Amino acid sequence: MDAPAPAALIGLDWGTTSARAYRFGREGNVLGERSGPLGIQQVRDGRFAEALTGLLGPWADDAVPRIACGMIGSRQGWVEAAYVQCPADLRTLADRLARVESARLAIVPGVSTRDEHAIPDVIRGEETQLLGALAPDSADVLAVLPGTHSKWAHVARGRLIDFRTYMTGEIYAVMLEHSILGRLAQARADTSGEAARGFMRGVERGLASGALAHDLFGARTLALHGELANHEVADWLSGLLIGREIADARRWATARGLDGAPVHVVGTAALAARYASGLQCAGWPIADTPSDAAARGLWRIAVAANLVDGASR
Amino acid sequence: MDAPAPAALIGLDWGTTSARAYRFGREGNVLGERSGPLGIQQVRDGRFAEALTGLLGPWADDAVPRIACGMIGSRQGWVEAAYVQCPADLRTLADRLARVESARLAIVPGVSTRDEHAIPDVIRGEETQLLGALAPDSADVLAVLPGTHSKWAHVARGRLIDFRTYMTGEIYAVMLEHSILGRLAQARADTSGEAARGFMRGVERGLASGALAHDLFGARTLALHGELANHEVADWLSGLLIGREIADARRWATARGLDGAPVHVVGTAALAARYASGLQCAGWPIADTPSDAAARGLWRIAVAANLVDGASR
Repeated sequence: MDAPAPAALIGLDWGTTSARAYRFGREGNVLGERSGPLGIQQVRDGRFAEALTGLLGPWADDAVPRIACGMIGSRQGWVEAAYVQCPADLRTLADRLARVESARLAIVPGVSTRDEHAIPDVIRGEETQLLGALAPDSADVLAVLPGTHSKWAHVARGRLIDFRTYMTGEIYAVMLEHSILGRLAQARADTSGEAARGFMRGVERGLASGALAHDLFGARTLALHGELANHEVADWLSGLLIGREIADARRWATARGLDGAPVHVVGTAALAARYASGLQCAGWPIADTPSDAAARGLWRIAVAANLVDGASR
Repeated sequence: MDAPAPAALIGLDWGTTSARAYRFGREGNVLGERSGPLGIQQVRDGRFAEALTGLLGPWADDAVPRIACGMIGSRQGWVEAAYVQCPADLRTLADRLARVESARLAIVPGVSTRDEHAIPDVIRGEETQLLGALAPDSADVLAVLPGTHSKWAHVARGRLIDFRTYMTGEIYAVMLEHSILGRLAQARADTSGEAARGFMRGVERGLASGALAHDLFGARTLALHGELANHEVADWLSGLLIGREIADARRWATARGLDGAPVHVVGTAALAARYASGLQCAGWPIADTPSDAAARGLWRIAVAANLVDGASR
């Protein structure tokens, strides 16, 4: 058996419900990945050091620096890495890393902004994915990170200019599980023409203007009137919410002078495919995005912070 | 002890979670009220006859007709009273009563409509409250019935012209209890200047334009930034949702040529007061409304259906 390749850095994408570790070589290449249900909600009594040892397994012996992004840096995490304000680039994040010296760990700060009504907005973890997904020399681009809290971002030349949160995924899950809308919803059929039809009908309704608190009720009344099959209810609801998000993001992008700029969809396959369908329906072009955004971002921030000896940027 | 006054009709407002009975005299005067946790969700195995006997108590011996409105006429109720379409008046509802002959019971149908996107909308129970609350000879008026599902209605000369549902109350409850927004929310302070301030700040945000899935997140970020006290979070959320509902209802009313028409707020005291505050903030005049809307409506429909011998209309 060959000796394992030497590591230069351990990167951690450490969120609320799960954690993922990357072992990097000297060129930023990912030598291996490990993951576990060790999100900060699962860690009792602040025993983060134990959780980290469990997550790293044999990599715990690598005498290299470690860098983490995500909710591990929140007030409920290991140590708080206070939010930095937009605009933020690799330099800004690298200068404001929080430290857990006993664990050779640096933690990437979250980023905050304010919307057009001066209401604060925050991200934590996605800033790293964004700066990993988009080339540092790219001109003004838009990106969306679908999820429980979907994040839209404006990035230019490696700098996070502004962003915007939508609770799309959480509204979907909570309303389907806990409101009257779940009563007439049956499990989705296998991916079929029928299911896609329900989703696309929802997207069309979402892209048009409306008040969400009224429009949501359609998931019940359409089924009640036999105009939506019970197995299509969840898809229609998903389409309505994603369509409405895209319509608002379009206004936001237009206000930033970015109407028509391609959108990078950064995220897991199934959800990214839904957003891609919605964007296509809205006539919005989609740009290619690498799949290992978090790993790339962690490496880039570590290099900017001189955590990695002699690493190539 | 005097003999009890003779009854002419028993009216029932029979909903999902609770039921209320009214005993009417010959002039439509309410001789007594009884209520119990006998909503259709509480009735097992279709034992509605037993539930009715329990609710009526001694009134079960009154040999008079009975009329009910609400979810008792839904597909999950005793017998289905199929929806009639807008516009609907006392005559329409009286002509389409469903019957349970064994219980001398007539059930008022629900009403359906379609919004500007041809999506169906339904009410069941509120049609009776509306036709009870508003004088049969009133010109075009607007009414709102706040609740889990808030209903706005356009009524003219005793005829329900159109209506519109908002899931405001249910979104509020479900998001506060089951989403991340509840994490930073503490129990409301006693009705104080502070609490009112949180509500009114939410209303102002709601009255302005925005995408609800984005704006809801403010209930977390404002608290996270110390710009909203934890005991104000629920109030701010309530204000945001009610404000957004009022803003959309304003557009709807304007499209119907009713901008500036006073709004009748039909509902329970605490919630009606919140809506009144929101309407005031929006500069929308409020009209007086009787408190016994359901009883009045049940009586009027029964008279229109000739259920009550020689009753005065």
